[in-house]
Amino acid sequence: MLSDQAIGVFDSGVGGLTVVRALMRRLPHESIIYFGDTARVPYGIKSVPTVTSYAVQIAQFLLERRVKLLIIACNTIAAVASQTISELSGTPVIDVIGAGAWAAARATHSGRIGVIGTLTTVNSGAYEQALRSERNDLFVASQACPLLVPLVEEGWLTHEVTRMVASEYLRPVLAQDIDTLILGCTHYPLLQPLLATVTGPGVALVDSAETVAERAHALLSRLGSARAEGEPRYDFFVTDVPQRFRSIGELFLGRPLGNVQVQAW
Amino acid sequence: MLSDQAIGVFDSGVGGLTVVRALMRRLPHESIIYFGDTARVPYGIKSVPTVTSYAVQIAQFLLERRVKLLIIACNTIAAVASQTISELSGTPVIDVIGAGAWAAARATHSGRIGVIGTLTTVNSGAYEQALRSERNDLFVASQACPLLVPLVEEGWLTHEVTRMVASEYLRPVLAQDIDTLILGCTHYPLLQPLLATVTGPGVALVDSAETVAERAHALLSRLGSARAEGEPRYDFFVTDVPQRFRSIGELFLGRPLGNVQVQAW
Repeated sequence: MLSDQAIGVFDSGVGGLTVVRALMRRLPHESIIYFGDTARVPYGIKSVPTVTSYAVQIAQFLLERRVKLLIIACNTIAAVASQTISELSGTPVIDVIGAGAWAAARATHSGRIGVIGTLTTVNSGAYEQALRSERNDLFVASQACPLLVPLVEEGWLTHEVTRMVASEYLRPVLAQDIDTLILGCTHYPLLQPLLATVTGPGVALVDSAETVAERAHALLSRLGSARAEGEPRYDFFVTDVPQRFRSIGELFLGRPLGNVQVQAW
Repeated sequence: MLSDQAIGVFDSGVGGLTVVRALMRRLPHESIIYFGDTARVPYGIKSVPTVTSYAVQIAQFLLERRVKLLIIACNTIAAVASQTISELSGTPVIDVIGAGAWAAARATHSGRIGVIGTLTTVNSGAYEQALRSERNDLFVASQACPLLVPLVEEGWLTHEVTRMVASEYLRPVLAQDIDTLILGCTHYPLLQPLLATVTGPGVALVDSAETVAERAHALLSRLGSARAEGEPRYDFFVTDVPQRFRSIGELFLGRPLGNVQVQAW
Protein backbone atom coordinates (compact mmCIF):
# COMPACT_ATOMS: atom_id res chain seq x y z
CA MET A 1 0.00 0.00 0.00
CA LEU A 2 1.37 3.39 -0.98
CA SER A 3 0.70 4.87 2.46
CA ASP A 4 2.94 2.22 4.07
CA GLN A 5 5.96 3.20 2.00
CA ALA A 6 8.61 5.26 3.77
CA ILE A 7 9.57 8.90 3.35
CA GLY A 8 13.15 9.23 2.09
CA VAL A 9 15.20 12.06 3.60
CA PHE A 10 18.75 12.87 2.59
CA ASP A 11 21.54 15.21 3.51
CA SER A 12 25.29 15.64 3.15
CA GLY A 13 25.77 14.51 6.76
CA VAL A 14 23.93 14.61 10.08
CA GLY A 15 22.32 18.05 9.79
CA GLY A 16 19.24 16.65 8.03
CA LEU A 17 18.36 14.81 11.22
CA THR A 18 16.76 18.10 12.37
CA VAL A 19 14.26 17.52 9.53
CA VAL A 20 13.75 13.90 10.60
CA ARG A 21 13.10 15.11 14.14
CA ALA A 22 10.41 17.53 12.90
CA LEU A 23 8.86 14.79 10.71
CA MET A 24 8.75 12.30 13.60
CA ARG A 25 6.90 14.85 15.70
CA ARG A 26 4.40 15.94 13.08
CA LEU A 27 3.89 12.59 11.28
CA PRO A 28 4.36 9.98 14.04
CA HIS A 29 3.16 7.00 11.97
CA GLU A 30 5.32 7.57 8.91
CA SER A 31 8.34 5.34 8.35
CA ILE A 32 11.52 7.19 7.38
CA ILE A 33 14.68 6.19 5.55
CA TYR A 34 17.48 8.67 6.19
CA PHE A 35 20.67 8.88 4.13
CA GLY A 36 23.61 11.00 5.33
CA ASP A 37 26.75 11.18 3.19
CA THR A 38 29.09 11.38 6.20
CA ALA A 39 32.15 10.22 4.21
CA ARG A 40 31.95 13.15 1.79
CA VAL A 41 30.48 15.81 4.08
CA PRO A 42 30.57 18.86 3.96
CA TYR A 43 29.03 19.73 0.59
CA GLY A 44 28.84 23.49 1.27
CA ILE A 45 32.42 24.07 0.19
CA LYS A 46 32.33 21.89 -2.96
CA SER A 47 31.59 22.77 -6.60
CA VAL A 48 28.19 22.46 -8.29
CA PRO A 49 29.07 19.44 -10.51
CA THR A 50 30.50 17.49 -7.57
CA VAL A 51 27.50 18.19 -5.30
CA THR A 52 25.10 17.28 -8.12
CA SER A 53 26.76 13.94 -8.88
CA TYR A 54 26.77 12.95 -5.18
CA ALA A 55 23.12 14.02 -4.76
CA VAL A 56 21.94 12.00 -7.77
CA GLN A 57 23.68 8.89 -6.42
CA ILE A 58 21.88 9.24 -3.07
CA ALA A 59 18.48 10.01 -4.63
CA GLN A 60 18.75 6.86 -6.75
CA PHE A 61 19.61 4.81 -3.65
CA LEU A 62 16.40 6.03 -1.96
CA LEU A 63 14.22 5.70 -5.07
CA GLU A 64 15.31 2.05 -5.39
CA ARG A 65 13.84 1.58 -1.91
CA ARG A 66 10.49 2.82 -3.28
CA VAL A 67 10.00 5.84 -1.02
CA LYS A 68 6.68 7.65 -1.50
CA LEU A 69 8.18 11.10 -0.94
CA LEU A 70 11.74 12.36 -1.33
CA ILE A 71 12.90 15.17 0.97
CA ILE A 72 16.08 17.09 0.20
CA ALA A 73 17.07 18.07 3.74
CA CYS A 74 20.37 19.68 2.71
CA ASN A 75 20.26 23.32 1.67
CA THR A 76 23.38 22.99 -0.47
CA ILE A 77 21.89 20.06 -2.46
CA ALA A 78 18.57 21.89 -2.76
CA ALA A 79 20.44 24.99 -3.96
CA VAL A 80 22.26 23.33 -6.84
CA ALA A 81 20.61 19.99 -7.66
CA SER A 82 16.92 20.30 -6.84
CA GLN A 83 15.89 20.55 -10.51
CA THR A 84 18.03 17.56 -11.54
CA ILE A 85 16.56 15.41 -8.77
CA SER A 86 12.96 16.39 -9.52
CA GLU A 87 13.55 15.37 -13.14
CA LEU A 88 14.91 11.90 -12.35
CA SER A 89 12.36 11.18 -9.62
CA GLY A 90 8.97 9.65 -10.35
CA THR A 91 8.13 10.50 -6.73
CA PRO A 92 7.13 13.91 -5.30
CA VAL A 93 10.11 15.95 -4.04
CA ILE A 94 10.12 18.56 -1.25
CA ASP A 95 13.23 20.59 -0.61
CA VAL A 96 14.25 22.79 2.32
CA ILE A 97 14.75 25.88 0.18
CA GLY A 98 11.31 25.84 -1.42
CA ALA A 99 9.76 25.19 2.00
CA GLY A 100 11.81 27.92 3.72
CA ALA A 101 11.01 30.50 1.05
CA TRP A 102 7.30 29.65 1.25
CA ALA A 103 7.29 30.17 5.04
CA ALA A 104 9.39 33.35 4.96
CA ALA A 105 7.21 35.00 2.30
CA ARG A 106 4.23 34.45 4.64
CA ALA A 107 6.09 35.56 7.81
CA THR A 108 7.40 38.92 6.59
CA HIS A 109 5.46 42.18 7.03
CA SER A 110 8.05 44.59 5.65
CA GLY A 111 9.00 42.38 2.67
CA ARG A 112 12.67 42.53 3.78
CA ILE A 113 14.16 39.05 4.33
CA GLY A 114 17.62 37.86 5.36
CA VAL A 115 19.12 34.48 4.45
CA ILE A 116 22.12 32.78 6.08
CA GLY A 117 23.71 29.57 4.78
CA THR A 118 26.86 27.89 3.49
CA LEU A 119 29.06 29.49 0.81
CA THR A 120 27.67 27.26 -1.96
CA THR A 121 24.05 27.84 -0.92
CA VAL A 122 24.45 31.62 -0.74
CA ASN A 123 26.45 31.89 -3.95
CA SER A 124 23.83 29.84 -5.83
CA GLY A 125 21.20 32.55 -5.37
CA ALA A 126 18.63 29.77 -4.90
CA TYR A 127 16.84 31.42 -1.97
CA GLU A 128 16.51 34.75 -3.85
CA GLN A 129 15.01 32.88 -6.78
CA ALA A 130 12.62 30.85 -4.60
CA LEU A 131 11.55 33.94 -2.62
CA ARG A 132 10.92 35.98 -5.76
CA SER A 133 8.80 33.19 -7.23
CA GLU A 134 6.66 33.46 -4.07
CA ARG A 135 6.42 37.27 -4.25
CA ASN A 136 8.33 39.40 -6.72
CA ASP A 137 8.49 42.50 -4.48
CA LEU A 138 10.68 40.99 -1.74
CA PHE A 139 14.06 42.45 -0.77
CA VAL A 140 16.62 39.73 0.09
CA ALA A 141 19.96 40.13 1.91
CA SER A 142 22.14 36.99 2.00
CA GLN A 143 25.23 36.11 4.01
CA ALA A 144 27.45 33.02 3.97
CA CYS A 145 28.42 31.85 7.49
CA PRO A 146 31.03 29.09 7.01
CA LEU A 147 32.06 28.92 10.68
CA LEU A 148 28.61 28.17 12.10
CA VAL A 149 28.56 24.51 11.00
CA PRO A 150 31.87 23.62 12.70
CA LEU A 151 30.80 25.57 15.81
CA VAL A 152 27.59 23.50 16.02
CA GLU A 153 29.52 20.26 15.45
CA GLU A 154 31.91 21.27 18.25
CA GLY A 155 28.80 21.61 20.45
CA TRP A 156 29.45 25.29 21.23
CA LEU A 157 25.76 26.16 20.95
CA THR A 158 25.78 28.92 23.58
CA HIS A 159 29.49 29.77 23.67
CA GLU A 160 30.65 33.40 23.69
CA VAL A 161 32.79 32.68 20.60
CA THR A 162 29.71 31.53 18.70
CA ARG A 163 27.84 34.68 19.72
CA MET A 164 30.73 36.84 18.45
CA VAL A 165 30.92 34.94 15.16
CA ALA A 166 27.13 35.16 14.65
CA SER A 167 27.16 38.91 15.44
CA GLU A 168 29.90 39.54 12.93
CA TYR A 169 28.18 37.56 10.16
CA LEU A 170 24.74 39.07 10.87
CA ARG A 171 25.84 42.72 11.12
CA PRO A 172 25.52 43.53 7.37
CA VAL A 173 22.24 41.58 7.11
CA LEU A 174 20.67 43.30 10.13
CA ALA A 175 21.80 46.68 8.74
CA GLN A 176 19.29 46.06 5.92
CA ASP A 177 16.31 46.31 8.33
CA ILE A 178 15.05 42.79 7.73
CA ASP A 179 12.09 41.49 9.75
CA THR A 180 12.55 37.78 8.84
CA LEU A 181 15.68 35.62 8.78
CA ILE A 182 15.80 32.23 7.04
CA LEU A 183 18.10 29.70 8.76
CA GLY A 184 19.31 28.31 5.44
CA CYS A 185 21.33 25.36 6.72
CA THR A 186 20.12 22.33 8.68
CA HIS A 187 22.72 22.94 11.39
CA TYR A 188 21.37 26.36 12.30
CA PRO A 189 18.13 25.39 14.11
CA LEU A 190 20.38 24.24 16.97
CA LEU A 191 21.62 27.84 17.24
CA GLN A 192 18.12 29.32 17.24
CA PRO A 193 18.19 30.56 20.90
CA LEU A 194 21.60 32.21 20.41
CA LEU A 195 20.66 33.71 17.02
CA ALA A 196 17.48 35.16 18.53
CA THR A 197 19.56 37.11 21.07
CA VAL A 198 21.72 38.48 18.23
CA THR A 199 18.84 39.49 15.95
CA GLY A 200 16.59 40.79 18.74
CA PRO A 201 12.82 40.27 18.99
CA GLY A 202 11.97 42.27 15.84
CA VAL A 203 13.18 39.52 13.51
CA ALA A 204 11.24 36.27 12.93
CA LEU A 205 13.50 33.21 12.50
CA VAL A 206 12.36 30.68 9.88
CA ASP A 207 13.48 27.13 10.72
CA SER A 208 13.11 25.17 7.50
CA ALA A 209 13.05 21.78 9.30
CA GLU A 210 9.64 22.64 10.80
CA THR A 211 8.40 24.05 7.53
CA VAL A 212 9.43 20.96 5.57
CA ALA A 213 7.48 18.75 8.00
CA GLU A 214 4.43 20.99 7.61
CA ARG A 215 4.66 20.83 3.81
CA ALA A 216 5.18 17.06 3.85
CA HIS A 217 2.08 16.65 6.00
CA ALA A 218 -0.01 18.79 3.65
CA LEU A 219 1.29 17.05 0.52
CA LEU A 220 0.74 13.49 1.79
CA SER A 221 -2.79 14.37 2.95
CA ARG A 222 -3.59 15.89 -0.43
CA LEU A 223 -2.24 12.83 -2.28
CA GLY A 224 -4.11 10.46 0.05
CA SER A 225 -0.86 8.67 0.91
CA ALA A 226 -0.47 9.66 4.56
CA ARG A 227 -0.20 6.86 7.11
CA ALA A 228 -2.61 7.44 9.99
CA GLU A 229 -1.80 4.57 12.32
CA GLY A 230 0.73 1.86 13.20
CA GLU A 231 4.32 1.79 14.39
CA PRO A 232 6.78 3.53 12.10
CA ARG A 233 10.12 2.07 11.07
CA TYR A 234 13.26 4.23 11.03
CA ASP A 235 16.33 3.31 8.98
CA PHE A 236 19.52 5.36 8.96
CA PHE A 237 22.16 4.93 6.26
CA VAL A 238 25.51 6.71 6.32
CA THR A 239 28.64 6.45 4.17
CA ASP A 240 31.04 6.62 7.12
CA VAL A 241 30.85 6.35 10.91
CA PRO A 242 33.34 8.93 12.11
CA GLN A 243 34.41 9.76 15.67
CA ARG A 244 31.56 11.28 17.68
CA PHE A 245 29.03 10.36 14.95
CA ARG A 246 26.48 8.99 17.38
CA SER A 247 26.72 11.85 19.90
CA ILE A 248 26.47 14.52 17.20
CA GLY A 249 23.66 12.64 15.45
CA GLU A 250 21.67 12.36 18.66
CA LEU A 251 22.17 16.09 19.32
CA PHE A 252 20.43 16.76 16.00
CA LEU A 253 17.80 14.06 16.27
CA GLY A 254 16.94 14.85 19.88
CA ARG A 255 16.67 11.14 20.76
CA PRO A 256 18.83 7.99 20.51
CA LEU A 257 19.72 6.85 17.00
CA GLY A 258 18.63 3.26 16.51
CA ASN A 259 20.23 0.96 14.00
CA VAL A 260 22.66 2.72 11.65
CA GLN A 261 23.83 0.96 8.48
CA VAL A 262 26.96 1.86 6.56
CA GLN A 263 26.84 2.15 2.77
CA ALA A 264 30.47 2.52 1.67
CA TRP A 265 30.95 4.36 -1.64
CA MET B 1 67.49 9.88 -14.56
CA LEU B 2 66.24 9.28 -11.03
CA SER B 3 67.19 12.78 -9.90
CA ASP B 4 64.88 14.28 -12.58
CA GLN B 5 61.81 12.48 -11.25
CA ALA B 6 59.40 14.56 -9.23
CA ILE B 7 58.59 14.50 -5.54
CA GLY B 8 54.97 13.49 -4.93
CA VAL B 9 53.17 15.36 -2.16
CA PHE B 10 49.61 14.63 -1.08
CA ASP B 11 47.01 15.92 1.30
CA SER B 12 43.27 15.81 1.94
CA GLY B 13 42.92 19.33 0.52
CA VAL B 14 44.93 22.53 0.23
CA GLY B 15 46.72 22.44 3.62
CA GLY B 16 49.62 20.39 2.22
CA LEU B 17 50.57 23.36 0.06
CA THR B 18 52.40 24.69 3.15
CA VAL B 19 54.69 21.66 2.73
CA VAL B 20 55.07 22.39 -1.00
CA ARG B 21 55.99 25.98 -0.14
CA ALA B 22 58.72 24.81 2.24
CA LEU B 23 60.01 22.30 -0.37
CA MET B 24 60.14 24.96 -3.11
CA ARG B 25 62.23 27.17 -0.85
CA ARG B 26 64.65 24.50 0.35
CA LEU B 27 64.88 22.40 -2.84
CA PRO B 28 64.41 24.93 -5.65
CA HIS B 29 65.34 22.56 -8.49
CA GLU B 30 63.04 19.69 -7.55
CA SER B 31 59.88 19.10 -9.58
CA ILE B 32 56.76 18.49 -7.49
CA ILE B 33 53.46 16.76 -8.19
CA TYR B 34 50.83 17.77 -5.65
CA PHE B 35 47.56 15.93 -5.09
CA GLY B 36 44.81 17.48 -2.95
CA ASP B 37 41.56 15.56 -2.42
CA THR B 38 39.40 18.69 -2.39
CA ALA B 39 36.19 16.78 -3.21
CA ARG B 40 36.40 14.62 -0.08
CA VAL B 41 38.12 17.05 2.31
CA PRO B 42 38.20 17.20 5.34
CA TYR B 43 39.62 13.84 6.43
CA GLY B 44 40.06 14.82 10.10
CA ILE B 45 36.46 14.00 10.96
CA LYS B 46 36.26 10.66 9.05
CA SER B 47 36.86 7.09 10.23
CA VAL B 48 40.14 5.20 9.88
CA PRO B 49 38.97 2.77 7.13
CA THR B 50 37.61 5.62 5.00
CA VAL B 51 40.75 7.76 5.34
CA THR B 52 42.94 4.74 4.56
CA SER B 53 41.07 3.79 1.39
CA TYR B 54 41.19 7.38 0.08
CA ALA B 55 44.91 7.68 0.92
CA VAL B 56 45.81 4.44 -0.87
CA GLN B 57 44.00 5.61 -4.00
CA ILE B 58 46.00 8.87 -4.04
CA ALA B 59 49.34 7.19 -3.30
CA GLN B 60 48.78 4.84 -6.24
CA PHE B 61 47.99 7.78 -8.51
CA LEU B 62 51.34 9.38 -7.61
CA LEU B 63 53.34 6.14 -7.77
CA GLU B 64 52.03 5.56 -11.32
CA ARG B 65 53.66 8.90 -12.16
CA ARG B 66 57.01 7.44 -10.97
CA VAL B 67 57.77 9.91 -8.19
CA LYS B 68 61.14 9.41 -6.50
CA LEU B 69 59.87 10.34 -3.04
CA LEU B 70 56.36 10.28 -1.58
CA ILE B 71 55.48 12.87 1.07
CA ILE B 72 52.37 12.47 3.20
CA ALA B 73 51.63 16.12 3.92
CA CYS B 74 48.37 15.44 5.77
CA ASN B 75 48.61 14.71 9.47
CA THR B 76 45.37 12.73 9.48
CA ILE B 77 46.59 10.41 6.68
CA ALA B 78 49.98 10.08 8.36
CA ALA B 79 48.23 9.26 11.64
CA VAL B 80 46.17 6.37 10.33
CA ALA B 81 47.59 5.16 7.00
CA SER B 82 51.34 5.79 7.05
CA GLN B 83 52.18 2.10 7.57
CA THR B 84 49.82 0.94 4.79
CA ILE B 85 51.31 3.43 2.33
CA SER B 86 54.91 2.54 3.19
CA GLU B 87 54.07 -1.10 2.53
CA LEU B 88 52.58 -0.52 -0.91
CA SER B 89 55.22 1.98 -2.00
CA GLY B 90 58.49 0.90 -3.61
CA THR B 91 59.56 4.53 -3.12
CA PRO B 92 60.80 6.20 0.09
CA VAL B 93 58.03 7.79 2.15
CA ILE B 94 58.31 10.78 4.51
CA ASP B 95 55.36 11.79 6.61
CA VAL B 96 54.63 14.94 8.59
CA ILE B 97 54.18 13.11 11.88
CA GLY B 98 57.52 11.31 11.81
CA ALA B 99 59.21 14.58 10.79
CA GLY B 100 57.41 16.64 13.45
CA ALA B 101 58.20 14.15 16.21
CA TRP B 102 61.86 14.07 15.17
CA ALA B 103 62.11 17.88 15.34
CA ALA B 104 60.16 18.20 18.62
CA ALA B 105 62.29 15.57 20.38
CA ARG B 106 65.33 17.68 19.48
CA ALA B 107 63.71 21.04 20.39
CA THR B 108 62.53 20.19 23.91
CA HIS B 109 64.65 20.79 27.00
CA SER B 110 62.14 19.77 29.65
CA GLY B 111 60.92 16.68 27.78
CA ARG B 112 57.33 18.01 28.00
CA ILE B 113 55.69 18.34 24.57
CA GLY B 114 52.23 19.48 23.47
CA VAL B 115 50.50 18.35 20.25
CA ILE B 116 47.52 20.01 18.58
CA GLY B 117 45.70 18.52 15.57
CA THR B 118 42.39 17.28 14.17
CA LEU B 119 40.15 14.88 16.11
CA THR B 120 41.25 11.86 14.07
CA THR B 121 44.95 12.72 14.38
CA VAL B 122 44.76 13.25 18.14
CA ASN B 123 42.61 10.19 18.80
CA SER B 124 45.00 7.99 16.79
CA GLY B 125 47.81 8.53 19.32
CA ALA B 126 50.25 8.61 16.38
CA TYR B 127 52.26 11.58 17.68
CA GLU B 128 52.68 9.98 21.14
CA GLN B 129 53.93 6.82 19.46
CA ALA B 130 56.31 8.66 17.12
CA LEU B 131 57.64 10.84 19.96
CA ARG B 132 58.22 7.85 22.25
CA SER B 133 60.08 6.02 19.51
CA GLU B 134 62.40 9.06 19.38
CA ARG B 135 62.83 9.20 23.19
CA ASN B 136 60.91 7.04 25.60
CA ASP B 137 61.04 9.55 28.50
CA LEU B 138 58.93 12.27 26.86
CA PHE B 139 55.70 13.56 28.40
CA VAL B 140 53.05 14.31 25.75
CA ALA B 141 49.82 16.38 26.14
CA SER B 142 47.49 16.30 23.11
CA GLN B 143 44.49 18.41 22.22
CA ALA B 144 42.09 18.23 19.26
CA CYS B 145 41.27 21.68 17.85
CA PRO B 146 38.48 21.13 15.26
CA LEU B 147 37.66 24.82 14.84
CA LEU B 148 41.13 25.96 13.79
CA VAL B 149 40.91 24.54 10.24
CA PRO B 150 37.65 26.35 9.37
CA LEU B 151 38.99 29.56 10.97
CA VAL B 152 42.09 29.42 8.74
CA GLU B 153 39.95 28.68 5.67
CA GLU B 154 37.78 31.68 6.54
CA GLY B 155 41.02 33.73 6.53
CA TRP B 156 40.60 34.85 10.16
CA LEU B 157 44.32 34.43 10.86
CA THR B 158 44.59 37.29 13.38
CA HIS B 159 40.93 37.65 14.39
CA GLU B 160 39.98 38.06 18.05
CA VAL B 161 37.65 35.05 17.73
CA THR B 162 40.56 32.89 16.59
CA ARG B 163 42.64 34.07 19.54
CA MET B 164 39.81 33.16 21.95
CA VAL B 165 39.35 29.72 20.36
CA ALA B 166 43.11 29.01 20.44
CA SER B 167 43.32 30.14 24.09
CA GLU B 168 40.49 27.83 25.07
CA TYR B 169 41.96 24.81 23.27
CA LEU B 170 45.50 25.45 24.54
CA ARG B 171 44.61 26.08 28.20
CA PRO B 172 44.79 22.40 29.32
CA VAL B 173 47.92 21.78 27.24
CA LEU B 174 49.75 24.85 28.60
CA ALA B 175 48.72 23.83 32.13
CA GLN B 176 51.05 20.83 31.65
CA ASP B 177 54.15 23.07 31.53
CA ILE B 178 55.18 22.09 28.03
CA ASP B 179 58.18 23.83 26.41
CA THR B 180 57.47 22.62 22.83
CA LEU B 181 54.23 22.56 20.84
CA ILE B 182 53.83 20.54 17.63
CA LEU B 183 51.50 22.17 15.08
CA GLY B 184 50.05 18.81 14.05
CA CYS B 185 47.93 19.96 11.10
CA THR B 186 49.09 21.58 7.86
CA HIS B 187 46.68 24.48 8.35
CA TYR B 188 48.26 25.57 11.61
CA PRO B 189 51.52 27.12 10.33
CA LEU B 190 49.38 30.01 9.04
CA LEU B 191 48.35 30.66 12.67
CA GLN B 192 51.92 30.58 13.97
CA PRO B 193 52.10 34.33 14.88
CA LEU B 194 48.77 34.17 16.73
CA LEU B 195 49.60 30.87 18.48
CA ALA B 196 52.93 32.32 19.62
CA THR B 197 51.09 35.14 21.43
CA VAL B 198 48.86 32.56 23.16
CA THR B 199 51.68 30.19 24.21
CA GLY B 200 54.13 32.96 25.14
CA PRO B 201 57.87 32.95 24.43
CA GLY B 202 58.67 29.94 26.64
CA VAL B 203 57.16 27.46 24.17
CA ALA B 204 58.90 26.48 20.89
CA LEU B 205 56.47 25.92 18.01
CA VAL B 206 57.33 23.04 15.67
CA ASP B 207 56.09 23.63 12.13
CA SER B 208 56.16 20.24 10.44
CA ALA B 209 56.15 21.74 6.91
CA GLU B 210 59.66 23.10 7.46
CA THR B 211 60.81 19.90 9.11
CA VAL B 212 59.51 17.75 6.25
CA ALA B 213 61.44 19.86 3.74
CA GLU B 214 64.59 19.51 5.85
CA ARG B 215 64.16 15.72 6.05
CA ALA B 216 63.43 15.46 2.32
CA HIS B 217 66.62 17.40 1.57
CA ALA B 218 68.68 15.11 3.81
CA LEU B 219 67.13 11.93 2.41
CA LEU B 220 67.56 12.84 -1.28
CA SER B 221 71.17 13.86 -0.65
CA ARG B 222 71.88 10.59 1.12
CA LEU B 223 70.28 8.57 -1.69
CA GLY B 224 72.15 10.57 -4.34
CA SER B 225 68.86 11.45 -6.05
CA ALA B 226 68.69 15.21 -5.37
CA ARG B 227 68.42 17.52 -8.37
CA ALA B 228 71.01 20.30 -8.15
CA GLU B 229 70.17 22.42 -11.18
CA GLY B 230 67.57 23.20 -13.83
CA GLU B 231 64.03 24.59 -13.82
CA PRO B 232 61.56 22.59 -11.78
CA ARG B 233 58.09 21.63 -12.99
CA TYR B 234 55.08 21.96 -10.70
CA ASP B 235 51.85 20.02 -11.27
CA PHE B 236 48.77 20.36 -9.09
CA PHE B 237 45.97 17.78 -9.14
CA VAL B 238 42.72 18.21 -7.22
CA THR B 239 39.48 16.23 -7.13
CA ASP B 240 37.25 19.31 -7.11
CA VAL B 241 37.63 23.04 -7.74
CA PRO B 242 35.36 24.60 -5.14
CA GLN B 243 34.52 28.26 -4.56
CA ARG B 244 37.56 30.23 -3.37
CA PHE B 245 39.90 27.29 -4.18
CA ARG B 246 42.48 29.45 -5.89
CA SER B 247 42.53 32.22 -3.26
CA ILE B 248 42.79 29.76 -0.36
CA GLY B 249 45.41 27.68 -2.21
CA GLU B 250 47.54 30.74 -2.87
CA LEU B 251 47.28 31.75 0.80
CA PHE B 252 48.87 28.40 1.69
CA LEU B 253 51.38 28.27 -1.15
CA GLY B 254 52.46 31.90 -0.74
CA ARG B 255 52.57 32.41 -4.53
CA PRO B 256 50.24 32.03 -7.52
CA LEU B 257 49.11 28.48 -8.29
CA GLY B 258 49.96 27.62 -11.86
CA ASN B 259 48.11 25.02 -13.86
CA VAL B 260 45.64 23.00 -11.78
CA GLN B 261 44.22 19.75 -13.20
CA VAL B 262 41.04 18.10 -11.99
CA GLN B 263 40.98 14.35 -11.37
CA ALA B 264 37.31 13.49 -10.72
CA TRP B 265 36.77 10.38 -8.57
